[in-house]
Amino acid sequence: MIDKIHHIGIAVHSLDDALTFYRDTLGLDVHAQDTIEDQGVKAALLTIGQSEIELLEPTRPDSAVGRFLERKGEGLHHICFQTPNVDAELDALKQKGVELVDQKPRRGLAGMICFLHPKANKGVLVELATPID
Amino acid sequence: MIDKIHHIGIAVHSLDDALTFYRDTLGLDVHAQDTIEDQGVKAALLTIGQSEIELLEPTRPDSAVGRFLERKGEGLHHICFQTPNVDAELDALKQKGVELVDQKPRRGLAGMICFLHPKANKGVLVELATPID
Repeated sequence: MIDKIHHIGIAVHSLDDALTFYRDTLGLDVHAQDTIEDQGVKAALLTIGQSEIELLEPTRPDSAVGRFLERKGEGLHHICFQTPNVDAELDALKQKGVELVDQKPRRGLAGMICFLHPKANKGVLVELATPID
Repeated sequence: MIDKIHHIGIAVHSLDDALTFYRDTLGLDVHAQDTIEDQGVKAALLTIGQSEIELLEPTRPDSAVGRFLERKGEGLHHICFQTPNVDAELDALKQKGVELVDQKPRRGLAGMICFLHPKANKGVLVELATPID
């Protein structure tokens, strides 16, 4: 069961540059900013309705976002769907033979999360997340 | 003022193929399907929380979505933000010197809409929309 779009991830070379558009020009609120060293990424989260924009700047070129920028340039990186139970959702997708990146949920910025493989979804990198209170 | 994510546009070669994932596997409801001949696109709209997934299949290769598929392949195409007054929002963005695709709002699937230029937004094609009742 999918409740809503939790966030849209956007890969950028510079958070500061990107914030001049999303925060200053569009007027969205930044409600969190964080560096996740093991994923090699600095993130800024902006509130938009029930959802978020997640701006992602790599901290090193060999991180997932660094390699995406190298290959495709700045732009839409992934979409994250919120589900009440990421474990059950992932099990159901496995049963249906959906190609996965993560075989089990792990801790991420949005709570307990997992990524499906873009091959499963017409080239779209899809994340599932169940927020942790 | 931006209220929420109205929809995420995803470019696909085949709506039918894409629906096997988004409708059949993820379980999202298709609430509309339409062909817009002057834009050279067939679209399916799926409800997700307050927002939508808009699957876009080109009806001819020289349409905007056809050229996107040729250049980049299937994947995330654009993001649409809902605003209560697209005319006022577009005027404000013009004042701020934001690069635009549309100089004034026009009728689209999501209501009165306009596109900003990806250059303005870190490579992201952004649409603004004010739904029409």
